[in-house]
Amino acid sequence: MSAPNPSDSGSARRLVRPAVAALAGYVPGEQPSDPRVVKLNTNENPYPPSPRVAEAIAAAAGNLHLYPDPDSSALRRAAARLYGVDPDGVVVGNGSDELLAMLLRAAVDPGEVVAYPIPTYSLYDTQVALQGGRSMHFPYPADWSLPEAIFGCGARVFFICNPNAPSGTLVPLDAIERLARENPGSIVVADEAYVDFCDGTAVGLVGRVPNLVVLRSFSKSYSLAGLRVGLAMTTPALAAELLKVKDSYNLDRLAQAGALAALEDQAAMRANVDRVRATRARLSAELGRLGFRVVPSETNFVLAYGPGESQEGVARSLKERGVLVRWFRALPDALRISVGTDAQVDRLLDELRSLVAR
Amino acid sequence: MSAPNPSDSGSARRLVRPAVAALAGYVPGEQPSDPRVVKLNTNENPYPPSPRVAEAIAAAAGNLHLYPDPDSSALRRAAARLYGVDPDGVVVGNGSDELLAMLLRAAVDPGEVVAYPIPTYSLYDTQVALQGGRSMHFPYPADWSLPEAIFGCGARVFFICNPNAPSGTLVPLDAIERLARENPGSIVVADEAYVDFCDGTAVGLVGRVPNLVVLRSFSKSYSLAGLRVGLAMTTPALAAELLKVKDSYNLDRLAQAGALAALEDQAAMRANVDRVRATRARLSAELGRLGFRVVPSETNFVLAYGPGESQEGVARSLKERGVLVRWFRALPDALRISVGTDAQVDRLLDELRSLVAR
Repeated sequence: MSAPNPSDSGSARRLVRPAVAALAGYVPGEQPSDPRVVKLNTNENPYPPSPRVAEAIAAAAGNLHLYPDPDSSALRRAAARLYGVDPDGVVVGNGSDELLAMLLRAAVDPGEVVAYPIPTYSLYDTQVALQGGRSMHFPYPADWSLPEAIFGCGARVFFICNPNAPSGTLVPLDAIERLARENPGSIVVADEAYVDFCDGTAVGLVGRVPNLVVLRSFSKSYSLAGLRVGLAMTTPALAAELLKVKDSYNLDRLAQAGALAALEDQAAMRANVDRVRATRARLSAELGRLGFRVVPSETNFVLAYGPGESQEGVARSLKERGVLVRWFRALPDALRISVGTDAQVDRLLDELRSLVAR
Repeated sequence: MSAPNPSDSGSARRLVRPAVAALAGYVPGEQPSDPRVVKLNTNENPYPPSPRVAEAIAAAAGNLHLYPDPDSSALRRAAARLYGVDPDGVVVGNGSDELLAMLLRAAVDPGEVVAYPIPTYSLYDTQVALQGGRSMHFPYPADWSLPEAIFGCGARVFFICNPNAPSGTLVPLDAIERLARENPGSIVVADEAYVDFCDGTAVGLVGRVPNLVVLRSFSKSYSLAGLRVGLAMTTPALAAELLKVKDSYNLDRLAQAGALAALEDQAAMRANVDRVRATRARLSAELGRLGFRVVPSETNFVLAYGPGESQEGVARSLKERGVLVRWFRALPDALRISVGTDAQVDRLLDELRSLVAR
């Protein structure tokens, strides 16, 4: 495909908002199409979802000529039952990424502040810039607790990725509750994409703490990264405001049906989570033996600080050998490694051993 | 489900932007779950899509644990081949609704003007309000040509639904081209959701007219309203700007696979379009015999001005009899009726005859 002609680019930039013309855009992790690549770079679940998902999708494929339910009612009711929240407080999104964007669109006027501890999910920066908001960053202390300075910073919205990516660490529930209670005019978002891999969900606070929103994703524990479904849980009143900025048919028939089937088979999800946790323990121990310092992980990935200074070269060498892991410019001496199958993890460890031995 | 408590609503409104708190939100057409209802209210195709769609979806359902291709590359290449445009100028969306939202997010700063002839797709108003833009409305003249006043209005973005909903009428290609040429610093969007039901696409101008964006939907001619896929076609340079405001994984694996299969079976789409057009001719003639004045339709629906003054009661009576059509407060003396199967249209006509005879 051809690169845009520079003079065309200049004209096109004059057709859009200056803020957009200046934007670089979010770069997602690499998604190679070669199935031989060992893909440990985007925190996917290496195991397939419940077999009921494919059955539900096949059944729903019979009615594709009709619009989906704009309210995703069946899915919202099932989520409400499972998590013990009011169904009118549940909003579903095309991935939790869409829910993050909806929260910003609903709550942030130009120049208003969105605060979060860093390092964290880098999409927050992109989305805040897009909405014209101002990101306020609070570096995590060495023990990965919530930075004290964030509590009084007066942000309009707080994003707490909990457990956090890329550290894999969890802040305690009482810190989330305190943040919400001390900032009653702001929205506190607990982005719990990885919470099924640990204990520590804030979902029990939903409804009791009126300015709290808990986000969940089907991409990790439910093995449905390819289906794009996320959930927001909050009060019915705040959900009603979020619904105003939702695309009316944001979730297609197949995604609604597949996510519902996945929710209704908790045993399948739990079995996959248990397998991932067992492999995570083994991966962490082996990385330790190779000289990495591994942050204790509550998620389906580990953050491993290497024995050498920069890990950029290690990530590149692994890629040349067909193993993808994530390296971040902001954390140059670490690798973020998703927990794959045992065979994938063995392959990674073999390659790492041969690299370290050189 | 419970209605939000009024005091909770007040608190929730203080958590969001004043512009959002004041917003009413878009109301999509009714989507009943009862399959006995004759659903002629949301312009769905009454026929199923190509059988290849379900096959492609079943195959794609085997890899749902992996993220989708964020670039929807295969689908974009297929669309580019079919329509004769540069693949780098194609952007895919979660329905063309998402593409409309992306265009506004990319191009419209607070208070900037978005212009369109009315009556038209009512979602435009909602989306412009959400983006903080200002809608400028230009009433269509009696012959449904592009209103002369729109050409010099100085809008940042123009939306031309062509053919238009709810009128079913088409403005000529040279009017679209003139609008784009006379407003070189603005984006002109030809929203061609219904264009497969007629001749008159602006896709031949894509690339040659740098500020033109052509939108297509899979919801109507391709019988995939339930899958949520739309296409934007423009220059690679303007597409690059739009991609900056796209959710990185906006289209799930199943939607990408299903839409690709549908594009690759033009014969199936054409056969359904031909059936709809034949039924449209019969529906229009019969409505004329019942005393309706039917606007000649280029789409898969007809706008029919009733023999009486307001058609609100007729729409309500039809609904009581299990037949849904669309009535708009802005067009009180008309009904918008989607072209269903012959059996559905016969049922509608029978009910209308008995209502008119009373």
